[in-house]
Amino acid sequence: MRELFELCGAAPELVFSPYCWRVRLALAHKGLDFVSRPVRFSDKAELAFSGQKLVPVLRDESTTVNDSLAIFRYLDTEYSQHPLLGGALGESRLRLIDQLIAQDLRPALFRLLVLRIYALIDPADRDYFRQSREKNLGMTLEAFADLQAGQAQFDRALQPLNTLLSNQPWLDGAEPAAADYLIGGFFFWAWCLGEQPWAEDSPVGAWFARLLNRYEQSHDPVRRAA
Amino acid sequence: MRELFELCGAAPELVFSPYCWRVRLALAHKGLDFVSRPVRFSDKAELAFSGQKLVPVLRDESTTVNDSLAIFRYLDTEYSQHPLLGGALGESRLRLIDQLIAQDLRPALFRLLVLRIYALIDPADRDYFRQSREKNLGMTLEAFADLQAGQAQFDRALQPLNTLLSNQPWLDGAEPAAADYLIGGFFFWAWCLGEQPWAEDSPVGAWFARLLNRYEQSHDPVRRAA
Repeated sequence: MRELFELCGAAPELVFSPYCWRVRLALAHKGLDFVSRPVRFSDKAELAFSGQKLVPVLRDESTTVNDSLAIFRYLDTEYSQHPLLGGALGESRLRLIDQLIAQDLRPALFRLLVLRIYALIDPADRDYFRQSREKNLGMTLEAFADLQAGQAQFDRALQPLNTLLSNQPWLDGAEPAAADYLIGGFFFWAWCLGEQPWAEDSPVGAWFARLLNRYEQSHDPVRRAA
Repeated sequence: MRELFELCGAAPELVFSPYCWRVRLALAHKGLDFVSRPVRFSDKAELAFSGQKLVPVLRDESTTVNDSLAIFRYLDTEYSQHPLLGGALGESRLRLIDQLIAQDLRPALFRLLVLRIYALIDPADRDYFRQSREKNLGMTLEAFADLQAGQAQFDRALQPLNTLLSNQPWLDGAEPAAADYLIGGFFFWAWCLGEQPWAEDSPVGAWFARLLNRYEQSHDPVRRAA
């Protein structure tokens, strides 16, 4: 059995971590089925078997792997069809891209989504979420959730993606691969929370529509959540 | 004969285009010798044989290639030792990285370097340089050359690189490859103009020192300029 342990909201079928979405998209890319194991913030003890506390965790028969990029590597090693990473150079560049988008794209979206996440997580998780995030941010969630500033930062972060995607259908070129899922995870994060703060008729909007369409055709694991 | 046509200043041995530096570094990586063909802004007619007007142009016996990434691909195809791109996925990710760093890293450095470039190019090139750049920038070179704003934008653009390079010696992992030269070209641009607006004791500073050391050990084409 292949199980994906992923963060969920009050509703277990709302799995909203962008890093878990990366893995869902990668599993779909490989054509691999899995059982979703939704975990709430307050259920993190359920991850103890993995030797650490962070989602995503993939348990594939007797093998346990955590960290989205490590899971990509595991999937390429174990299931060679449709490579995700493209070897060592492909992986190192993915790590560089991950650092570059962590500066604006991720925090801009978090700003736009944070109060929605707060509303949709389990009430038992809210104190933990508020305290841990406010400590990291150095301000209240409400002060951080400046929608105008978040949208401006996000729009700016989209510019390089729009430029690239006006010349090619996928971030990874003619076919989607790990870069599409690395970045696409953040778009699914927004989408599953009911937000799509990008223009549908932009190159990025068309790319997300293609990504969503492929994902939905591959299977429908969201509704398959236990 | 292998010839690299590259932009030069009043002194022909000052070749300062970051895109030409990418190719110099890539040729050194492959262990390939070449003859530098310095071209001034006002000599662009010398590139007519390439069917376009932009440096770098590599003429390798009877083959002519322009555009730094196309030259990387040509070098990998023709000289398979020490791959630069790492296949199709490696190349597509390099294009994404190129877009991402074009937003802040490149313009921030240009702001810090523009008046130095203006001073070091051939006097006959200055009117063209000022008019073309001021039209693109929508302001005078002097107004654009806000060193404080440029340094702040550059320092911020360095953060993801510093994070990555605190865990690994090269942007491309354990050994340098195309991502190091793609981004390193901008650092050589500053360096050859006599500027090093980064902290020597930072991970990026140590990376640049390693890159410069390898480049200087491989050959010394700067002094080899015709």
